[in-house]
Amino acid sequence: MYKYKILQSKLEELGVDAYICFDADDHGSEYVSRHFKARDYFSGFTGSNGTLVVTKTEAKLWTDGRYFIQASEELLPGIELMKEGEKGVKTVFEYLKSIKEQPKVAFSFRLASVAFVKTLQKCGVEAVSDESLADALWEDRPAREITPAWFLTNEEAGETQEEKIGRLRAAMVKEDAPYALVASLDDAAWLLNMRGNDIAYNPVNYVYVLVGKEFVNLYADEEKIAALRPELEARGITVKSYDEVYSDAERIDGVTLIDESKTNYALYEKLKYKKAAAVFPTTAMKAEKNSTEIENIKKAHIIDGVAMVKFMRYLKENAGKEKMTEISVADKLYEFRKQSEDFIELSFGTIAGYEEHGAIVHYEATEKTAAPVYAKGLLLVDSGAQYRFGTTDVTRTFVLGEISAEAKTDFTLVLKGHIDLAMAIFPVGTTGLSLDMLARKPLYERGKNYRHGTGHGVGYLLNVHEGPQNISMGGVRKSNIYPFRPGMVTSDEPGFYEEGKYGIRHENLLLCVKKNETEYGEFLGFEPLTLVPFDKEGIDFDLLDDKEKEYLSNYHRRVYETLAPYLDKEDEEFLRKITSEDK
Amino acid sequence: MYKYKILQSKLEELGVDAYICFDADDHGSEYVSRHFKARDYFSGFTGSNGTLVVTKTEAKLWTDGRYFIQASEELLPGIELMKEGEKGVKTVFEYLKSIKEQPKVAFSFRLASVAFVKTLQKCGVEAVSDESLADALWEDRPAREITPAWFLTNEEAGETQEEKIGRLRAAMVKEDAPYALVASLDDAAWLLNMRGNDIAYNPVNYVYVLVGKEFVNLYADEEKIAALRPELEARGITVKSYDEVYSDAERIDGVTLIDESKTNYALYEKLKYKKAAAVFPTTAMKAEKNSTEIENIKKAHIIDGVAMVKFMRYLKENAGKEKMTEISVADKLYEFRKQSEDFIELSFGTIAGYEEHGAIVHYEATEKTAAPVYAKGLLLVDSGAQYRFGTTDVTRTFVLGEISAEAKTDFTLVLKGHIDLAMAIFPVGTTGLSLDMLARKPLYERGKNYRHGTGHGVGYLLNVHEGPQNISMGGVRKSNIYPFRPGMVTSDEPGFYEEGKYGIRHENLLLCVKKNETEYGEFLGFEPLTLVPFDKEGIDFDLLDDKEKEYLSNYHRRVYETLAPYLDKEDEEFLRKITSEDK
Repeated sequence: MYKYKILQSKLEELGVDAYICFDADDHGSEYVSRHFKARDYFSGFTGSNGTLVVTKTEAKLWTDGRYFIQASEELLPGIELMKEGEKGVKTVFEYLKSIKEQPKVAFSFRLASVAFVKTLQKCGVEAVSDESLADALWEDRPAREITPAWFLTNEEAGETQEEKIGRLRAAMVKEDAPYALVASLDDAAWLLNMRGNDIAYNPVNYVYVLVGKEFVNLYADEEKIAALRPELEARGITVKSYDEVYSDAERIDGVTLIDESKTNYALYEKLKYKKAAAVFPTTAMKAEKNSTEIENIKKAHIIDGVAMVKFMRYLKENAGKEKMTEISVADKLYEFRKQSEDFIELSFGTIAGYEEHGAIVHYEATEKTAAPVYAKGLLLVDSGAQYRFGTTDVTRTFVLGEISAEAKTDFTLVLKGHIDLAMAIFPVGTTGLSLDMLARKPLYERGKNYRHGTGHGVGYLLNVHEGPQNISMGGVRKSNIYPFRPGMVTSDEPGFYEEGKYGIRHENLLLCVKKNETEYGEFLGFEPLTLVPFDKEGIDFDLLDDKEKEYLSNYHRRVYETLAPYLDKEDEEFLRKITSEDK
Repeated sequence: MYKYKILQSKLEELGVDAYICFDADDHGSEYVSRHFKARDYFSGFTGSNGTLVVTKTEAKLWTDGRYFIQASEELLPGIELMKEGEKGVKTVFEYLKSIKEQPKVAFSFRLASVAFVKTLQKCGVEAVSDESLADALWEDRPAREITPAWFLTNEEAGETQEEKIGRLRAAMVKEDAPYALVASLDDAAWLLNMRGNDIAYNPVNYVYVLVGKEFVNLYADEEKIAALRPELEARGITVKSYDEVYSDAERIDGVTLIDESKTNYALYEKLKYKKAAAVFPTTAMKAEKNSTEIENIKKAHIIDGVAMVKFMRYLKENAGKEKMTEISVADKLYEFRKQSEDFIELSFGTIAGYEEHGAIVHYEATEKTAAPVYAKGLLLVDSGAQYRFGTTDVTRTFVLGEISAEAKTDFTLVLKGHIDLAMAIFPVGTTGLSLDMLARKPLYERGKNYRHGTGHGVGYLLNVHEGPQNISMGGVRKSNIYPFRPGMVTSDEPGFYEEGKYGIRHENLLLCVKKNETEYGEFLGFEPLTLVPFDKEGIDFDLLDDKEKEYLSNYHRRVYETLAPYLDKEDEEFLRKITSEDK
């Protein structure tokens, strides 16, 4: 019997009309561990976004345009694919409302966002909490990963936990909230200078932190913090079991500041008085890297740059000579990165898209789809790593042989946008919504665009995607109207995608720095952190203006000068050649 | 006895602790007629922004930085100047709260905005309506101007009142509001294709329009619409007296859609069920000019361009030869404009700022301050007119002789920003907050900026400032995140001001047009409407890039070709010379 049918068979007993499965964890995390992939288990679909709803007679799965093909291939027979955003396709909410008048719907409140449950309630759907069914029906469910937590030293963190807690408490006073619940895993990691390995790519721990005026409670599994207990106690942190956060939340008698997007509905319900922060204080603080973090991040980018130069040389010298596939080149890059003793893991699954696969923005090659790579065309590689010293994320588009004039033009237009954003000077208060224009302008002028954001915040040995700022167009979002501040690390990654032909993206991480102070106030700008050459073979230099050429030549000089001491002779010569003035 | 003291002496009788006077009319208008200048009368201060508060023993006037000097000179003895925004200076609200616990404060509810009264109430201040005191104490108060209204023909309006009402009713259905109250004077003028002369510079009528599913009520003084009555009746409009809107508002039994920023508090109170539109439908519709309006606006700009060319020739040929002052040159420009039989009035008071006066953004010369103008330095002239065919607004900075290298650089940087915004291509959905970056970028790069918006909407034979869109930086406002649409007319007016030295501003009106449609959607851009040469003597051509030079040379060619047929030989030769390729 298909797994989802077992769910269906239990609805009667549960007294509900429908059951909902998400791929989500208790903390609103972007990536989740295998333990949390109930939706994959019951539906067969493994994409990163999807919601399964079963009624007694029906089973439907909602996902977005990135996954229509994958879902139709993977879904178990009998589950209808609901293509989000397509005309005439009901939303989850519309569907639930249509089952009957005031339907009862069960799901895990611990996995549901506050916004999701509030929307259900607005639609007249009765939400019923169920924390056991999926678990009971899931054979051989992987246990929630509990990895040992570890501390950053003060030399690595640059600010002690006490100082950070002090700043959080000051923010709590401003918000008139005697308590703050840190539910976001990377915020908790930042606050306590603690890292872990509970989620692939994200060096975080499944914990909660509750901060009061006089106490700090850490809710964590015993195995996780056993080794750290003396140190935690010395720091005045009370350690409680992971689940005790629920009973403690129920007992809090004052206003608790929360991040509504990271606090699950079960926990939210327990809090009597809560205040959703517009931007949670630790999220704002975490974004502005301190000088120690910045120095370390720069080291991480040297390590990453060395690996990327070796990778580029490998590609350029071996394409067409040895058998390569999208998977083999990603593996090769992984090997180069792993050569550093400071390498911890990748910061996300490498995207290596050759020719037409490059045009699929969230492409991840599988054994089945992996294309062979030849000595022609464009290879887009978006990758990054977690090092002891920080988190990297870089995209380069490599020219492996002949490319069309059209591809070269697009390659250059995207590079112009990348450079124009990187060169921006702007007053304090400027937001990503305004900066975005600079990256897209060269494409706009030719009626072109790309359907993704231009930049996201990046953590310090933390999540490769973090807020609160980003650079994007279209509607106003909390993130793209959050002002840039010195110390923020943000990606600069415009792209262009010609369906069926090629994809182009150029991505550096940029550090926001103070550039100038005049009677008109403080002016900010960026310094590139990433140290990886752009492939000059893709550039039509006639399309670059003088300032862009100057930026590129300075950038390449800096890449060469910074990386050369870390390279052996062959790699150094290769780098010198590809970063030299000759075009 | 000083006028404000008479106000003070009546507080006891009125049973209140304070009295507030504004310069404001019943419709939240930007400019008001003399009848409404109670604050001027009682305080002596004539600036465009200020609030007078008197208690039994104190009198204070709040105004902003533009007016600190003027206010200190004009205010009657005994009134304390409250410098808004300066450290330690209480706001009106903070001051009222500080008088006593729950103070009672009287003012005209008809002149107060909804937001003002709501803020008072939040502060624990009891607001008491008084519509008679100021009037009773004001000797020889000018009557509210009642000028005859007149209709635009359909050839002038391009859309009948019936069609516009139909569109408004469709918007009301969407908003679930069976009634809509049009309180904004320019919205009422647009909706009924009616103009008047009740406020200087703004060809509007003091009227209200109430639209229901089956009726249209016009609330207007008899003298105003006497001549139009048959036509109004033929159009199915019920004419009622101006004040009857209050009793009708009280009787409405369904939801009324309102513009909260334009509906005074007295009227707001009367409405039982009201819904504040995010953007009032007629404001959105009025902004997108129809093809007839656009054709006419282009004619208005030819007339205005001819006057400006004559003015420029007058300046260039006579500066240093005849006696000129900031007032005399403004008068001269007025004469050139008046030569057209289609000229109605100016669209705002001409700003002519010579040398250091140019750096005062809202400068208006008086007999006392007017500087003599010589054959050297920079003269900034910001002016515009109402013609039968539309409204103009143009700023040029004229080089009258020698200028510093610094001034030339700034002149050119501002021009670069002006041109870069004018050349922008952007997808539908782009807002003024993003576009603003393009106009300021050349200044930002040198740590410079200007402390005003970059662009405002402009009416069609209506107010020179209209919404809903604008182009500005800094915080997110409703206006700068309102997306651009084809047909919108917006100014493009970056500037730079060197205090004590000079002011530079270059302003054209731009028409938003569709530029391109691709698989990435519709792309918009601008066409300049203004036809006035930029003074090439201020330009450092080395600072312009090739695209900017090409734009400027195309623009100048178009100005010459369009205006030449309307000029006499001398003017034509002058224009040819200053628009020719030779630098």
